[in-house]
Amino acid sequence: MPYEVGVPMPDEFDVIVIGAGPAGEVAAGRAAAAGLSVAVVEKELAGGECSYWACIPSKALLRPVDLAGEAGRVPGVEMAPIDAKAVLAWRDSMVSGYDDSGQVRWIESAGVTLVRGRGRLAGARRVEVETQGGDTRALTARQAVVLATGSTAVIPPVPGLADARPWTNREATGARAVPGRLVVVGGGVVASEMAQAMRGLGAREVTMVVRGGGLLERLEPFAGEMVAASLTGQGVELRTNENVEKVERPDPEGEVTVRLASGRTLVADEILVATGRRPATGDLGLATVGLEERGPVRVDGSMRATGVGDGWLYAIGDVNGLSPLTHMGKYQGRVCADVIVARSRNAADDRPSMRDRADGMGAPQVIFTDPQVCAVGRTEAQARADGLDVRVVEYDMGQVAGGALLGEGYRGRAKAVVDERRRVLLGVTFVAPGAAELLHAATIAVTAQVPLDDLWHAVPSFPTVSEVWLRLLEEYGL
Amino acid sequence: MPYEVGVPMPDEFDVIVIGAGPAGEVAAGRAAAAGLSVAVVEKELAGGECSYWACIPSKALLRPVDLAGEAGRVPGVEMAPIDAKAVLAWRDSMVSGYDDSGQVRWIESAGVTLVRGRGRLAGARRVEVETQGGDTRALTARQAVVLATGSTAVIPPVPGLADARPWTNREATGARAVPGRLVVVGGGVVASEMAQAMRGLGAREVTMVVRGGGLLERLEPFAGEMVAASLTGQGVELRTNENVEKVERPDPEGEVTVRLASGRTLVADEILVATGRRPATGDLGLATVGLEERGPVRVDGSMRATGVGDGWLYAIGDVNGLSPLTHMGKYQGRVCADVIVARSRNAADDRPSMRDRADGMGAPQVIFTDPQVCAVGRTEAQARADGLDVRVVEYDMGQVAGGALLGEGYRGRAKAVVDERRRVLLGVTFVAPGAAELLHAATIAVTAQVPLDDLWHAVPSFPTVSEVWLRLLEEYGL
Repeated sequence: MPYEVGVPMPDEFDVIVIGAGPAGEVAAGRAAAAGLSVAVVEKELAGGECSYWACIPSKALLRPVDLAGEAGRVPGVEMAPIDAKAVLAWRDSMVSGYDDSGQVRWIESAGVTLVRGRGRLAGARRVEVETQGGDTRALTARQAVVLATGSTAVIPPVPGLADARPWTNREATGARAVPGRLVVVGGGVVASEMAQAMRGLGAREVTMVVRGGGLLERLEPFAGEMVAASLTGQGVELRTNENVEKVERPDPEGEVTVRLASGRTLVADEILVATGRRPATGDLGLATVGLEERGPVRVDGSMRATGVGDGWLYAIGDVNGLSPLTHMGKYQGRVCADVIVARSRNAADDRPSMRDRADGMGAPQVIFTDPQVCAVGRTEAQARADGLDVRVVEYDMGQVAGGALLGEGYRGRAKAVVDERRRVLLGVTFVAPGAAELLHAATIAVTAQVPLDDLWHAVPSFPTVSEVWLRLLEEYGL
Repeated sequence: MPYEVGVPMPDEFDVIVIGAGPAGEVAAGRAAAAGLSVAVVEKELAGGECSYWACIPSKALLRPVDLAGEAGRVPGVEMAPIDAKAVLAWRDSMVSGYDDSGQVRWIESAGVTLVRGRGRLAGARRVEVETQGGDTRALTARQAVVLATGSTAVIPPVPGLADARPWTNREATGARAVPGRLVVVGGGVVASEMAQAMRGLGAREVTMVVRGGGLLERLEPFAGEMVAASLTGQGVELRTNENVEKVERPDPEGEVTVRLASGRTLVADEILVATGRRPATGDLGLATVGLEERGPVRVDGSMRATGVGDGWLYAIGDVNGLSPLTHMGKYQGRVCADVIVARSRNAADDRPSMRDRADGMGAPQVIFTDPQVCAVGRTEAQARADGLDVRVVEYDMGQVAGGALLGEGYRGRAKAVVDERRRVLLGVTFVAPGAAELLHAATIAVTAQVPLDDLWHAVPSFPTVSEVWLRLLEEYGL
């Protein structure tokens, strides 16, 4: 709630949330809606990484590229080369020109007080905010402090890299122009998506330098293989089992030289480092409450930090290391807010909405490459490592009529991991163009543990791609 | 199974299926896979209405139009006008040039005997086939006869209409060229889809003449309203509360004049009649087994025709009047085959797969207009008429980040009908561009009766359109 000029802002709130990204905003809004007084502290833009430097701008850049891929498969349809300038302008509008006043309005309309500045724990229930002017304000939480500071990109200690003005997700998603030559270090989601986007928007040379043997290695192996084949087909050069040894950029405005362990040298206009993120726990005052200064803040199923007396500290989103995904942070924010509200009323704090069920099942995730990759639950390897009685069924989505009708040369693959003992799904992966919206059916089936015999009666409409569900169940033997 | 030259085809099979459309093929294939001897009788093309004259060609025609709509919303992307000739050629390839040899190969590889000709019941367990040469063959079924003859388009008794060479779904989906001026009579699925397709492929004037007050009247009212607004915006003229009084086409190759009840006259190059379909029960010999000659063949939950002694007759697909949709016919084919197999072995015939659960819940359906319409379960009106304790939640899908990222001016609407007593979903409707694959999540939730408190933990991935699930649950109060 905006405080009037001349009326001093209170120093005490029921709940103080540090970090106004998606997770923090959701927790703050939900606690305020239940009648608690809530402050949210933010040192950058309200809305967080996702809104300005990750999900939103990356998907704005990828959407036209994705559409061009679709158009290339449909007879009778011809698309002009993508106008990259128009796409970058659209990206700018989707991130509100990096202006958070819309988010601030939402925060205020939700009855939450926004405190701008860097928030730090300063003992039990106390938060110090270093304002942009350099002042420090001391805030006290009557009920709870929620850490929602997110994560930051890791720059590996490669000689010369940090000084070569490397791009992280921020500079890549915020690019003012498409670089002619781009080196991408990493083989995960950010690396794959940005390689695809920049190549699709006109980058002449995109080279991915991947330490492992393939892309997206936490997912089912075919996912990374199919994305790699697609990227390679679009002209991205993929160098797997490769490491960066040294980076040079003598002129900070000039080209960057990347020396690889194999001996090869790449020259590019920009280098994007996408080798991982770490929880943003540095300079957060964790030691003042007896926690380790580094690494994720461990939480229990109610998002309460473990090892803190009296249970007033919570952590949601990337900072707790559970599932570094926007939607999971928001989910944890809902769980957390509901728990805090219940506990503030001395009400039952173990209702169904008050425990994190989703992280333990395997968080859903969509990767917006072409083909899109979506997965929920456990991979086959994870399920086997967990000692479960696993059976796997796979299906070629190009054989589904609804897929063939999306265009010539449509290809896709689906895999379901079944718990044989309980006859429920442990995990599902789809890799196909435009597959993103297929995932939620799997997320419901896996999370709610819908028995296969019930899924059998959920008839996929013809001719949708969702008919792959029928095929998977038939392959299983139903 | 193909029979060798010189070896007489047997006259007796365990199962005889009349009609080799999707429903009949599925039932035949599944029964044969379980070891029964099966014949399927088909008087036209194996593969049926769906493969040559309905789902497949209509979606092939609509796909480029749909893509053009998407492209129009994405900045930086420009599409050339659709090359209708290339699209018609693609349609031809998707219907295999109206040649069923691929389907025949599948039938044979499934171990099913294809008997070409018109099949008719001739008393209990007996089927007469009038072959194309005019001969009659008598077949006997040891276990069961399955009627899967589908439905046929109704031409209403409007003076002059039948003589004006009106298009039905067959001629529309099979058009050799896009007519310059098209009158569409009807406001249902075929009418809406074909108006969209022909206009999108270049028809200069498309006029829909609709008896009722709007389109798609069996669905939630906003579905028809949004499709109507979209069609009108694309230049289709919509005349609701209107009737055709008289049709004239003196020169069968010339233009057609359509006189309306309101007094107005339309002149067009073709007239498409899409006012409904009726079960194909005429000339099927139903009277020889004591059934009415007209109307659908009523069935019980195991797809067995009611009122036939000894229970050897089954009916699946459009002919039983339950849910005239390809996927529901195939589903019924699975139920039916499993039941027949079980009964042939004197095994339990009431296992979960052996009863039709889906038709009673409200069959899922996707309409491939732009916006796409998808719905499953009961509408609000149906649920209230059924006397249930109903609460409704709606959400503007344009407010979902995943929607906004699909393009500028993305609009959509979602509605969920909740059974308040049991806290489960009775029905869900989505209307939005590209919404088709959203439906299966709802189909699982409605069919498996997943409690709302479980759906709450099925986290939609950000930023997908599926996040509308979260919004609906939040609107509900979770």
